Amino acid sequence: MIPAVDPEAAMRQPEPARGGQFAPPNPDYAARVRASFDRQGAMKLIGARLAEVRPGYCSIQLPYRDDLTQQHGYIHAGIVSAIADSAGGYAGFTLFPADASVLTVEYKLNLIAPAAGERLVAEAEVVKPGWTLAITRGEVYAEADGRRSLCAIMQQTLIVLSGKADD
Amino acid sequence: MIPAVDPEAAMRQPEPARGGQFAPPNPDYAARVRASFDRQGAMKLIGARLAEVRPGYCSIQLPYRDDLTQQHGYIHAGIVSAIADSAGGYAGFTLFPADASVLTVEYKLNLIAPAAGERLVAEAEVVKPGWTLAITRGEVYAEADGRRSLCAIMQQTLIVLSGKADD
Amino acid sequence: MIPAVDPEAAMRQPEPARGGQFAPPNPDYAARVRASFDRQGAMKLIGARLAEVRPGYCSIQLPYRDDLTQQHGYIHAGIVSAIADSAGGYAGFTLFPADASVLTVEYKLNLIAPAAGERLVAEAEVVKPGWTLAITRGEVYAEADGRRSLCAIMQQTLIVLSGKADD
Amino acid sequence: MIPAVDPEAAMRQPEPARGGQFAPPNPDYAARVRASFDRQGAMKLIGARLAEVRPGYCSIQLPYRDDLTQQHGYIHAGIVSAIADSAGGYAGFTLFPADASVLTVEYKLNLIAPAAGERLVAEAEVVKPGWTLAITRGEVYAEADGRRSLCAIMQQTLIVLSGKADD
Repeated sequence: MIPAVDPEAAMRQPEPARGGQFAPPNPDYAARVRASFDRQGAMKLIGARLAEVRPGYCSIQLPYRDDLTQQHGYIHAGIVSAIADSAGGYAGFTLFPADASVLTVEYKLNLIAPAAGERLVAEAEVVKPGWTLAITRGEVYAEADGRRSLCAIMQQTLIVLSGKADD
Repeated sequence: MIPAVDPEAAMRQPEPARGGQFAPPNPDYAARVRASFDRQGAMKLIGARLAEVRPGYCSIQLPYRDDLTQQHGYIHAGIVSAIADSAGGYAGFTLFPADASVLTVEYKLNLIAPAAGERLVAEAEVVKPGWTLAITRGEVYAEADGRRSLCAIMQQTLIVLSGKADD
Repeated sequence: MIPAVDPEAAMRQPEPARGGQFAPPNPDYAARVRASFDRQGAMKLIGARLAEVRPGYCSIQLPYRDDLTQQHGYIHAGIVSAIADSAGGYAGFTLFPADASVLTVEYKLNLIAPAAGERLVAEAEVVKPGWTLAITRGEVYAEADGRRSLCAIMQQTLIVLSGKADD
Repeated sequence: MIPAVDPEAAMRQPEPARGGQFAPPNPDYAARVRASFDRQGAMKLIGARLAEVRPGYCSIQLPYRDDLTQQHGYIHAGIVSAIADSAGGYAGFTLFPADASVLTVEYKLNLIAPAAGERLVAEAEVVKPGWTLAITRGEVYAEADGRRSLCAIMQQTLIVLSGKADD
């Protein structure tokens, strides 16, 4: 038998709560995101910190370090991607049921200014939640001297792996 | 005065040599790529190694390490991106003139299997060289027990920064 | 001699006016967009209409027709793309100097709900203007019975072809 | 109950036959693709023709017409997308089971040369088949005077809608 994606289900999605906010099906979503983030060796390696988690939203901070750079001394596009991808994945994960895990299907990142400054901040939001796929958008900002400037934008597709624990 | 991209120039491009190979305008392209790669702090941090450089082609190897992972123990998508992006950037850079530098404009990455195994290998090739923009495609393979399996594919746009030294 | 992208210029960009609005370098931007749109045979073929043009913004409407569909009777992804791409291109074009033309370098489109309803509306905004490249984001909505629902999102890179008339 | 994507199933995929060819689970794949293509109103509107269908591969031809153009007289990016997207979707569809339908999740298209000439030919191949998602790559060529030149490349994600008839 072929495992099925129920086409009706593929269209169904978590209902946004009143006020445009998403209602997370798992009330422990924030603790769950934090525990998952803490298991990401790559986030620890680069010194990234989970900054904020809300239903359908996640932000990650990354202080500048010399060992995160490309050849011109800016933060490497792959490192910019790493925090953008994690922010998007965890934004989506806040809206997943308790027994589901998250994987990135794909994303696209535009690098629109050099990633320099004191720190980077990646922010991502769910554009479309779903039981099978979820779609997010994200931005990465460079912060210096109390000012922030946009340095990258992302569009991402996630898959909901139901029945698969995250750890 | 508005700095111009000459529309004719935007269409011109390095001529492929006979046999479908690209002819690099800079004969020292390989040494130049290696010197640039060695300045990428991020590649050193994650333990990536420049494996092969040819005109229009670059490959990068990355041995598996626990501190490169996402929450399920696979290599983090951002780390996969980092080697795919660098492989694509340096594939393009082999065809740039001696006084030009390279920046990634954007890329899109599909993650098609978990990035596990003994090492990852990112390979990228120039699809379309150019004086202003260059387009590449790349693949990331996971290698284990002498076998390789495809785990990610990339499509990337680079910009040629003429008159800007790479270091 | 190699035609150059001035790296300083590649970073420079039109200044946003106060209030977060972009100040178009060409005061006749709207008439110019409309004239260019009217030369797009593909927009006429599919019945698309230029709805609104502002600095850094463009929207396009497309009434539903049976001959625009894919096999399930929804509007074909390519047709959805066509209006999203044109909306993005013209959003960018509003901020181009009078002697420059616009070409799409690339875009990525997520189709997040079936494109059905009485009409589609594509909206796009400039995220980052520039003298060489411009970056936009867009959304396509399906409208029916006075309600609109999101059916696609786009992220796009444009190139400014200076010294090239648009017609 | 939450409809599930079985995580094991998400990893399973059709086995490639010997010789690197994919073995289609539905022996009538070609007739099914042709019937589906014939239901695409958009393909008829623009004059596209299904050229070749093999397991994991599809090509579509599009003769040049003045009413398919953007403002410079080249084929509109959205029309280029339409044939690239359909070629990718049908390449994937050849490997779907008989009771499943196909939808495009997302794609990214680089336009690398003006789409001019006597006709365009879109070719697409499955990179990774799957029971839930399938990944393809495609190219669009412009043909004139017996020569072909590459004008666009695509990377695409499809979803398998099991239990949903295609018509």
